[in-house]
Amino acid sequence: MKLKIAVLAGDGIGPEVTAQAIKSLKAIADVYGHSFEFQEALVGACAIDATGNPLPKETLSLCEQSDAVLFGAIGHPKYDNDPSAKVRPEQGLLALRKSLGLFTNIRPVKAYPTLLEKSPLKREIIEGTDFTIYRELTGGIYFGEKKLNSEGTIASDLCEYSEGEIERIAHLAFKAARQRRKKLTLVDKANVLETSRLWRKVVTQLGKSYEDVTLDYLFVDNAAMQMILNPSQFDVILTENMFGDIISDEGSVIGGSIGLLASASVGEGSAMFEPIHGSYPQATGKNIANPIASILSAAMLLEHFGLKEEAQTIQSAVEFALEKNVVTTDLHQESTYGTIQVGDFIAHCIAETD
Amino acid sequence: MKLKIAVLAGDGIGPEVTAQAIKSLKAIADVYGHSFEFQEALVGACAIDATGNPLPKETLSLCEQSDAVLFGAIGHPKYDNDPSAKVRPEQGLLALRKSLGLFTNIRPVKAYPTLLEKSPLKREIIEGTDFTIYRELTGGIYFGEKKLNSEGTIASDLCEYSEGEIERIAHLAFKAARQRRKKLTLVDKANVLETSRLWRKVVTQLGKSYEDVTLDYLFVDNAAMQMILNPSQFDVILTENMFGDIISDEGSVIGGSIGLLASASVGEGSAMFEPIHGSYPQATGKNIANPIASILSAAMLLEHFGLKEEAQTIQSAVEFALEKNVVTTDLHQESTYGTIQVGDFIAHCIAETD
Ligand SMILES: [Mg+2]
Ligand SMILES: [Mg+2]
Repeated sequence: MKLKIAVLAGDGIGPEVTAQAIKSLKAIADVYGHSFEFQEALVGACAIDATGNPLPKETLSLCEQSDAVLFGAIGHPKYDNDPSAKVRPEQGLLALRKSLGLFTNIRPVKAYPTLLEKSPLKREIIEGTDFTIYRELTGGIYFGEKKLNSEGTIASDLCEYSEGEIERIAHLAFKAARQRRKKLTLVDKANVLETSRLWRKVVTQLGKSYEDVTLDYLFVDNAAMQMILNPSQFDVILTENMFGDIISDEGSVIGGSIGLLASASVGEGSAMFEPIHGSYPQATGKNIANPIASILSAAMLLEHFGLKEEAQTIQSAVEFALEKNVVTTDLHQESTYGTIQVGDFIAHCIAETD
Repeated sequence: MKLKIAVLAGDGIGPEVTAQAIKSLKAIADVYGHSFEFQEALVGACAIDATGNPLPKETLSLCEQSDAVLFGAIGHPKYDNDPSAKVRPEQGLLALRKSLGLFTNIRPVKAYPTLLEKSPLKREIIEGTDFTIYRELTGGIYFGEKKLNSEGTIASDLCEYSEGEIERIAHLAFKAARQRRKKLTLVDKANVLETSRLWRKVVTQLGKSYEDVTLDYLFVDNAAMQMILNPSQFDVILTENMFGDIISDEGSVIGGSIGLLASASVGEGSAMFEPIHGSYPQATGKNIANPIASILSAAMLLEHFGLKEEAQTIQSAVEFALEKNVVTTDLHQESTYGTIQVGDFIAHCIAETD
């Protein structure tokens, strides 16, 4: 397969972890005979510094012309510490999501056997956890009409959803469930919200075309509890924007390491892959950042294009590195491996795949 | 002090656990020379059976004439299994909250030393946790305008808040913090929502009158993480209705036993106290239901009326029962104590207070 991949490494540790993901992708290309073409562009604080714009035109058009975007991280203390700054690195990411129409955010949560000790949850609870959250990313209350009366004493936010917005992400979630353990959980608040009732109606209707997938429903408050009490019950979770924000952040901590968590944002014609961690400026250039989340986001990229075996090869290489304790110090304090060494080890494992 | 207390024991295990709370309150009255008058009334399924109405007029007027309402639990399988039933037990509770103007829900979360094993969180994380959530209960998206277009393809829910709605609960939360560890955390999503920005503005402004209380802010998605990663950091959490629903349910499971969790719902002139658990129909009449949540709701009642020492006496008696393993089988499988025996033991401890 030929893929044109835009590399937006961004700020802080973004470039160093993304470099490891590229190593893995190159190793995959070699082993499986694919042709991946990488082209870099600026985004975030480094783009502001160079052009004044967190998402320069050239970057956007490169992304539009590419099959996928491999994203690093953005953000720099000089902007974080200046709340009055009008141009901010994060705007680059938001503008990119919007311009590319990335309406679905995908977040896998997996408990790795060697890292159960790191979880805040007891071993018997977190063990076996392996689910993916499909969060609607461009609708709902975050993007609805906002009002403040002229006296500044009454404020409102509108949550709105249309059938079409629900259907397009629901199809993706059902298809994902089909490739996994065939269970889809819709998280909503249908006992109270009109939008949730629409979600429930549309998803239930669509479920009839995915008869092999078991569909169940969970109110968001109950979901917040079940995530702690019994996270291994979940396979694919589908939910609207704000519930997804809360639930997926809650889900991100139960595994015990944010340094392992990748994500994808998918639209009609574009897809972007990134670690969920930030730019971690304090660690920049020290060769201590954990590259695994970025490497796993490369695996998600492969899976997105139907390259299941290739994605699994990266997954297995990562699991092997975890087993052998070839990890950065955030996972194993006494480790002598740095970002580059972990990246090399994983790429080497991939290269040795027969 | 003279208090007129309406007792709405409700359905299922409601009556049996409420009876234990009354025992404790009577013991307190004896020890401290108070006069508590208890009057019973129907609510929920039993009220539907008797009158056709889950909140009969006589019940509401009794509550209006009382200083406080001691509430049990409502719900019966014959209604749960019939989603088409137009008259439902839960309507009794919603109507009561609305009629009494109970705009604040208060939920304490506490990790008891003898029960740390029951928590889904690791001991070192849950240990020392002791916070209270103040949740706005009558505004926000749950009560805002709901719309569905005539084709049934576009739905919306409006989240609205006014300065006044925020101020009245914020005062209660600041006052509570003052009586505790003097820290108040506002949970919002002020980086995205207009209503959250109003919450932040109003609460920040009000904070100037509570200089002894440290005010901080947390986005709701981060709060959902912090509740798992480091719950002992919290003292008083203040938040709007829907965030409070999610966060307080999440908080309810970290302690490990829902059978210990009490709550209060407070309005301008009324206040209601209840366990957070449901009517648990399968356990009804078997003398196995845990009465502690109901007994702790009685302690919250006392605290509400400024009877701090009395509330503490109940708390201490409960802690003594936990230490001595005088608990129902949900907390200790081999226990031979039932609902009544636990209630008697706690009332007895209170009676022996000098
Ligand atoms: Mg978030
Ligand atoms: Mg709830």
